[in-house]
Amino acid sequence: MIKILRFSDPGFDAAFAEIVGRGEAAQADVEVAVGNIIADVRERGDQALFDYTAKFDRLQLNAKTMQVSQGEIERALAAVSEESLAALKLAAERIAAYHRKQKTETWLSTDEPDVLLGQMVRPLDRVGIYVPGGKAAYPSSVLMNAVPAKVAGVAEVIMVVPMPGGEVNPHVLAAAHLAGVDKIFKIGGAQAVAALAYGTRSVPRVDKITGPGNIYVATAKQQVFGQVDIDMIAGPSEILVINDGSGDPAHIAADLLSQAEHDELASSVLITTDEAFGLKVAAALEEQLGKLSREAIARQSIDSYGAVIVAENLQEAIAFSNRIAPEHLELAVDNPFEILPLIRHAGAIFMGHHTPEAAGDYLAGPNHTLPTGGTARFFSPLGVDDFVKKSSIVSFSRAGLERLGRQIVHIAELEGLEAHAKSVSIRLEKS
Amino acid sequence: MIKILRFSDPGFDAAFAEIVGRGEAAQADVEVAVGNIIADVRERGDQALFDYTAKFDRLQLNAKTMQVSQGEIERALAAVSEESLAALKLAAERIAAYHRKQKTETWLSTDEPDVLLGQMVRPLDRVGIYVPGGKAAYPSSVLMNAVPAKVAGVAEVIMVVPMPGGEVNPHVLAAAHLAGVDKIFKIGGAQAVAALAYGTRSVPRVDKITGPGNIYVATAKQQVFGQVDIDMIAGPSEILVINDGSGDPAHIAADLLSQAEHDELASSVLITTDEAFGLKVAAALEEQLGKLSREAIARQSIDSYGAVIVAENLQEAIAFSNRIAPEHLELAVDNPFEILPLIRHAGAIFMGHHTPEAAGDYLAGPNHTLPTGGTARFFSPLGVDDFVKKSSIVSFSRAGLERLGRQIVHIAELEGLEAHAKSVSIRLEKS
Repeated sequence: MIKILRFSDPGFDAAFAEIVGRGEAAQADVEVAVGNIIADVRERGDQALFDYTAKFDRLQLNAKTMQVSQGEIERALAAVSEESLAALKLAAERIAAYHRKQKTETWLSTDEPDVLLGQMVRPLDRVGIYVPGGKAAYPSSVLMNAVPAKVAGVAEVIMVVPMPGGEVNPHVLAAAHLAGVDKIFKIGGAQAVAALAYGTRSVPRVDKITGPGNIYVATAKQQVFGQVDIDMIAGPSEILVINDGSGDPAHIAADLLSQAEHDELASSVLITTDEAFGLKVAAALEEQLGKLSREAIARQSIDSYGAVIVAENLQEAIAFSNRIAPEHLELAVDNPFEILPLIRHAGAIFMGHHTPEAAGDYLAGPNHTLPTGGTARFFSPLGVDDFVKKSSIVSFSRAGLERLGRQIVHIAELEGLEAHAKSVSIRLEKS
Repeated sequence: MIKILRFSDPGFDAAFAEIVGRGEAAQADVEVAVGNIIADVRERGDQALFDYTAKFDRLQLNAKTMQVSQGEIERALAAVSEESLAALKLAAERIAAYHRKQKTETWLSTDEPDVLLGQMVRPLDRVGIYVPGGKAAYPSSVLMNAVPAKVAGVAEVIMVVPMPGGEVNPHVLAAAHLAGVDKIFKIGGAQAVAALAYGTRSVPRVDKITGPGNIYVATAKQQVFGQVDIDMIAGPSEILVINDGSGDPAHIAADLLSQAEHDELASSVLITTDEAFGLKVAAALEEQLGKLSREAIARQSIDSYGAVIVAENLQEAIAFSNRIAPEHLELAVDNPFEILPLIRHAGAIFMGHHTPEAAGDYLAGPNHTLPTGGTARFFSPLGVDDFVKKSSIVSFSRAGLERLGRQIVHIAELEGLEAHAKSVSIRLEKS
C-alpha cells in the first residue's frame, strides 16, 4: 500500500530523504573494475572488445562481425510489423520537429563600427549512442538519442548495443535505421564506452557519448568525461504529480504506475491538496496494481518509494516540487498554465488532465532523456544543444584596437602578464 | 629556440603527439587525496574547512571570519586605482553586453491545434565560482565567471578564493564587487569544491561550480560532477596561429609569447604557408623573449611545446587546425572571414591582424574560459548556457490524446510497458 504522508508528520523528512537518496550506492569496486576495463580497451583495442563480449555477452565477435551488417538491418526491418514501423516513424518525425525548434544559429554582432563579435554554432563531428541490450532494449531510447543528433547536423552517429547470446530486439535496429544511425556495433558495458571514447581499429573515436546504461556504463561514462563529452549521469526514474482535487483518481493512479513499473528503484509521488482525492488514488492504485504484468516490480517500487502527500494548498505543493526538482512533473490541476511560472525545477512538465507522462515518453516530441534525482536543478533534457558546440568570434579593426587597446594593456599589466600587454602595444606603436 | 617543423618531417607526428598529450599526468594519488578531503568535508563540514585552510593556506578561520566582510571589500576597493577600476568596469560591461546576446527565451509551439509543446528556460538558483588564490589571482577570471552567471539571472553567486597567509589580490575582490558576487569565502582547494557541492553550515550548497584551479581543484570538480554540475575540465592553455605570409612577424611572435608566459605547459604554435615569414617570427620570438620578465617560464614553454610549422597551403593549415581543435585560434591572414567557414573546432577565433588573443582575454566581450587540449571538438566557451537549464513542456488536450493515443499505446506495448499503455488508454475509454 502506498504511504500517505503529511508535511507535519514527525517522520516526513526522514521518509523523504530515503526517497531522494535511493540512487546513491557504494561503488568503489565498480569504479576499479571499470577503470581496469577502460585501460584494457585502450591497450588492446578490438581484441579486448572481443574478449569482454565473449565473457559478458556470450558472443564471439571478430572485426567483421562486430558491426551490424546491412543484411542484419534488413532482416530486423522485415521482422517489424507495418503498424509498429508506422508508429516509430511518427515518433521519429515528431521528435525531429520538436528538436528542430531548439536549433540556434551562428550570429555576428555589428553593434560597434570597429569590433565584430560573434558565436559560431557547429554540430559535433561524431557521437556515440549507448543502447542497453537484450529484450529490455527500448526503440524509443534510440530515437530520443539519435534523432536530436541528426537534427543538430552530426555527420556520423555510432550506436553500440550489446547483444547477449547474439540476440537483439529488431525494433531497436528498426529505430536506428529510421533515425539515420550510421554504424552499429554489437558491444556493450564499460568496454563499449571505452571504445567510443578512445577508438579502436574498428570502432571510431567519438566526441560525445549519450544514452542510458547500467551502473558499469554510467561509471565508465563518468570516467571518460573530459576525454569526450557525455550527457547527464542518470539515476533511477521518478514522477511527481501535483493535484488540486480535480480530475479522475484512476488516471493519476495509472500515471504513478507507469513510473513504478520501470524498476524497483523508481519513485512515484502524488502531492494533492485534497485528502479524499488522495485516498481514492491510493485505492485505485491497489486495484490497478493487481492487474499489471509487471506487478512485482511496480509493487516494490510503490511500497519503497511511493507516497501520497497531502498539502495544505497548491503553494505548499509547488514549494515541495521545487525542493525535489523532479524528473517528470505532472500538473494534474484544472489550470496548469496558471501555476507554470512557479515551477523552478523539473525535467519535463506534463500539463493538465489529458497529458500522461507516457505521451512524452514516446512521441509528443520533447526528449525522454531527463535529469533525475534532483539534478533538474542544473541539468536539462537531452537536446540539440548536446550535439553542437560553439566557438567565439572576435574581430578588431585597427580602429577598434586603438580605441580599446589602452585598457587591455592596463588589465594585462595588473595581472602581471607583460607579454599579453606587449601583444597589444606592439600593434599600436608605429602606424 | 622554437622548433621549425614540416608535415613531411619523419618525426612530425611524434612531436605533435607530445604537444597534444602534454596535459595528461598520472593522478591516482591525487584522486585518492581529493576523495578523502571531500568525504571529510561532507562529514565534518565547517570544521574540516577550518582545518584544511590552517594546514594548506596557513590561515586560521572561524564561522565568522570565513566569509569576506563588507569592510574587507571596501578596503580592497580603496586599494585599487581609479584607472584600474575603470578598466575592470569597462571589461565587466563589455562582457555583460556580449553574454546578453547569448540568452535564449522560453518558447511554446502552437503548430498543432491540440498539442502544445515548449521549452522553459530558467537560471540556476545558486552557483559557485572558484578563483585561484595568492598573487596570481586574476580579476579577469572573476569577471568571466560571475558576469555570465548574473546575466543568466542566477540569484546567488558564491565565490571561493583561497587567501594564503590571509593575503588576497584587491583587484580580485574589486572584480567580484563589480560583477555582483553575493558572497565570498576565504577557502580554496578540494575542500572549497566539496563545501560548494555538498554545503556546510556556513557555505551554501550550489547547483554548479565553475572556474579554473590546480589539479586538486580540477579533480575535485570531476569527483563532485553529478552531485552538482561543473564547467569543462580545463588543461594547460594553447594558441594556434594560422598565417598566409601577410602581417608583421613581430606581432605574431608577441601573440605566441602571450600564451607561453602563462606556464611551462602552455603551447604556442604558428602554422604558416610562408617559410620565410615563419623564420622571421622565430627570430622575433628570440629577440622578444630576452626582454620578458617571465622569460624563464615562456622559454621553457616555447622550447617544449612551441613550434613553427610550414604548410604547403592554407587548406593544409586549416585541416591541421581542425585536427587539434585549438583553444585559441588566430587567423592572421589577409582575409580571415573567407576561411572562417572552414574552421570546424576552436574555442575562440581571433580574426585578422589587429585582433591579438589578449583582446579576447580581457574585454572584447566573449568569455576567456575556453575548452583546451582538443576538447573544443565537443566543449563550448563558458557562457550563459552554463548558468541556465531547461524544462520541457507537454500539453495535450483531450483531442490531442485521441489523435495520438493509439500510437503511444502501440509503442508502449512494443516495449512491454503495460502501465504506460494503460495511462493513455484509461483516459480514452469512457468519454
